[in-house]
Amino acid sequence: PDAPSLEDGLLRARKFIEHWHGHSLILPSVGPHAPYTSTREMLKACTSLALEYDVPIHIHIAETAKEVEENRSERSMPVVPWVKKQGLFDAKVLAAHCVHLDSGEISTLQHYRAGVAHCPTSNLKLASGIAPITEMLDIGLNVGIGTDGPASNNDLDMFEETRLAALLAKGATSDPTVVPARQAFAMATIMGARALHMSDITGSIEVGKRADLVVLDLDVLHNTPTFQRDQDSIYSQIVYVSKSSDVSDVMVNGEWLMQNRQLLTVDEDQLTASATDYAIKIDDFLIEREQSLLSKLVAIGGMERQESFEIQAKARITDPQKVIDVLQQYPFNIIRHVRYQQYDTYFLFGESEDYRLRIREGDLGDADGKVENVRYRLTLLGPAKEKEFSGSILLSRSRYLAPSPHTLRFYREYFVPVEEREVEKDRLRWQVSFSDVEFYVNLDRLNSPDLGT
Amino acid sequence: PDAPSLEDGLLRARKFIEHWHGHSLILPSVGPHAPYTSTREMLKACTSLALEYDVPIHIHIAETAKEVEENRSERSMPVVPWVKKQGLFDAKVLAAHCVHLDSGEISTLQHYRAGVAHCPTSNLKLASGIAPITEMLDIGLNVGIGTDGPASNNDLDMFEETRLAALLAKGATSDPTVVPARQAFAMATIMGARALHMSDITGSIEVGKRADLVVLDLDVLHNTPTFQRDQDSIYSQIVYVSKSSDVSDVMVNGEWLMQNRQLLTVDEDQLTASATDYAIKIDDFLIEREQSLLSKLVAIGGMERQESFEIQAKARITDPQKVIDVLQQYPFNIIRHVRYQQYDTYFLFGESEDYRLRIREGDLGDADGKVENVRYRLTLLGPAKEKEFSGSILLSRSRYLAPSPHTLRFYREYFVPVEEREVEKDRLRWQVSFSDVEFYVNLDRLNSPDLGT
Repeated sequence: PDAPSLEDGLLRARKFIEHWHGHSLILPSVGPHAPYTSTREMLKACTSLALEYDVPIHIHIAETAKEVEENRSERSMPVVPWVKKQGLFDAKVLAAHCVHLDSGEISTLQHYRAGVAHCPTSNLKLASGIAPITEMLDIGLNVGIGTDGPASNNDLDMFEETRLAALLAKGATSDPTVVPARQAFAMATIMGARALHMSDITGSIEVGKRADLVVLDLDVLHNTPTFQRDQDSIYSQIVYVSKSSDVSDVMVNGEWLMQNRQLLTVDEDQLTASATDYAIKIDDFLIEREQSLLSKLVAIGGMERQESFEIQAKARITDPQKVIDVLQQYPFNIIRHVRYQQYDTYFLFGESEDYRLRIREGDLGDADGKVENVRYRLTLLGPAKEKEFSGSILLSRSRYLAPSPHTLRFYREYFVPVEEREVEKDRLRWQVSFSDVEFYVNLDRLNSPDLGT
Repeated sequence: PDAPSLEDGLLRARKFIEHWHGHSLILPSVGPHAPYTSTREMLKACTSLALEYDVPIHIHIAETAKEVEENRSERSMPVVPWVKKQGLFDAKVLAAHCVHLDSGEISTLQHYRAGVAHCPTSNLKLASGIAPITEMLDIGLNVGIGTDGPASNNDLDMFEETRLAALLAKGATSDPTVVPARQAFAMATIMGARALHMSDITGSIEVGKRADLVVLDLDVLHNTPTFQRDQDSIYSQIVYVSKSSDVSDVMVNGEWLMQNRQLLTVDEDQLTASATDYAIKIDDFLIEREQSLLSKLVAIGGMERQESFEIQAKARITDPQKVIDVLQQYPFNIIRHVRYQQYDTYFLFGESEDYRLRIREGDLGDADGKVENVRYRLTLLGPAKEKEFSGSILLSRSRYLAPSPHTLRFYREYFVPVEEREVEKDRLRWQVSFSDVEFYVNLDRLNSPDLGT
């Protein structure tokens, strides 16, 4: 992601693969993030690289409804057919999330033996949706269980994730018999290994495979009692009752990493101290960033640090047509005339902040009001000196502009304003020259709030 | 539930309340199970009892879509208006589940200050649905968190339940900002206490309330690191990361019940041994019951232990009309004539079992085939001696009948047949007398399987 160009990124991936290829514990893979953040060229190059070294490709697929919608509208097909068209399935694919797939797409994944990484906690926490894993499992697709990263799942706990996968599928299909504990356990082990294209070396306890073992303590009170009658009851116990904190011993590739609840290869105290240090740094960084609206604005990215000063003369007009008539006569020369419908939300930050943030949705229309374009813009407005001069002349300064790709809700949560004001107006705007001086004339009709007459 | 009559049950409840009323830890309440298992009389009597002693009423409300459907069709209104009509809300109500409520019903609960016990694990595991708790919380309804019982939630773990409540609401509303950790924590504590109508004595750490305290160990690795910047981050930690196994100390009403992970008032070894004994008994009981089809059939309940012997003469008819013509002439006297459409599923149990189980769905029609009634019946068929005599005479015995209120899927899971066969036939049935002997004549047209010609 930090590579300056596709070529740099690919070279880095190639070096990474060459460095780790053949390692007893590390399986390098190529990871184009997702179709909506990838070009055709990128996917094709990644596929070639994966094929060249026979390593898997890991890619997010159809995580959100928005992604699917946009793929359909921009590429005229759902996500899976589009990546298929780029030849992605020539390689061994692990598809993460797969929340919004139709039956045809699920069949395509199965046809190409792609694996699915089901991440139920992340999908719920980010409100992405519920993946149709019952349908996937029914046709024999290899669905493994993923935690996703700490940004969307705090504790990366495979016990919780497996339990949630089993429960959620029942709720989602209104069928309490789907994804029984034994199947959920398989998803967390052998089916996950198949999804990762690694089932030849791990995923089950078999001669010839790596000795990856986890020992659970069933003697703790919450694991009591256990039942013997049904041979599947041990799976119910593990999936619905046991916790990650019941793990007493862990062996990876024949080497004990934990015994009797003690980590053997990691210094727990040092790890804790180091994590605490990082947490303090993150806290400090965020505290500093949040002290200033400007630095928060910069953090969103894409801001133009463009400062401008404006001198505005404001006046209330009783008969707009008179102004329009005057503008259309000599000595005014109209360079450009547009019409906007403007929906502004102002974030105010109480007395402690001099700045206001304006989130403007502008419907740019032609002179007849037909919408030609919609644009969203964030503007940080500095303190304005209103009525500095008589006749409602306003002096404003410090305008930092940023594109506004997020939702109003996002900005509301991010900037946490003390107060919000909404202004909606219909703006006629003329760019005019008058005696070789160019300026703008705006004729605004305020639709809301109602200022009275 | 074990009382022989409503009066006995009410008397028992009254004695229970009188016995425990005023106890420092036990709040007795009246618990009519659910509207669909209660009569008007029952709800009215329970409400009177609750009002007399000023104790809450605990009742399941709208747990499944089926319950709501049946209430609508039998009582011409949704569940909440119906219980309201019985005066239930005159008492302090705690409504469990509340999965299938509309906005009006949610408002009614709020109007009467009823509490809701949200049980997300149970609702998912039984595939009941997802309760609209965001809407409930938005109007200020007190939604607490419940585990439900061990029949639908293996570990009764409030930490898991709280986490799931927070996650599920986001997924269900497609809004990642609903039920933030702080609110989920409140649901598990003070809001739950309000839902139980007990917030005057518990639910928050306040002077005058009971000292109910839980100490969490945040020094374990999965709770590392913690963040300080945001005052809500401790709630994120507790809701999304901490486990019940992090609880190190528990105080109830000022008395320590657990200290430094040691239970002080319960002998853990004895409890474990006792639970293990129960588990063995349950295993034994189920093993014994499942050895015999008959005992499994009895366990479902409602079976008529009616044994019958039948002698059947079977013959293939090429021209059914000829038989009909003969039947309508002297010396036959037709007592009754009906037409059935019969859909039979036979469960076979391999060589080890002599019995077959037939699940029959019969559409009972009039002579013209118009469906008048549908009935479902389970029949346990004993070994039949086919063709004991020449001319396809069949001798069958041992018919145990039971009504069949469950789905075919239920029976399939419960009886675990080795093989299934489906037979669909159109049956004309005459009850006739001939020389003072009554018997039946069935004229069957087999629709499936196709037996050839």
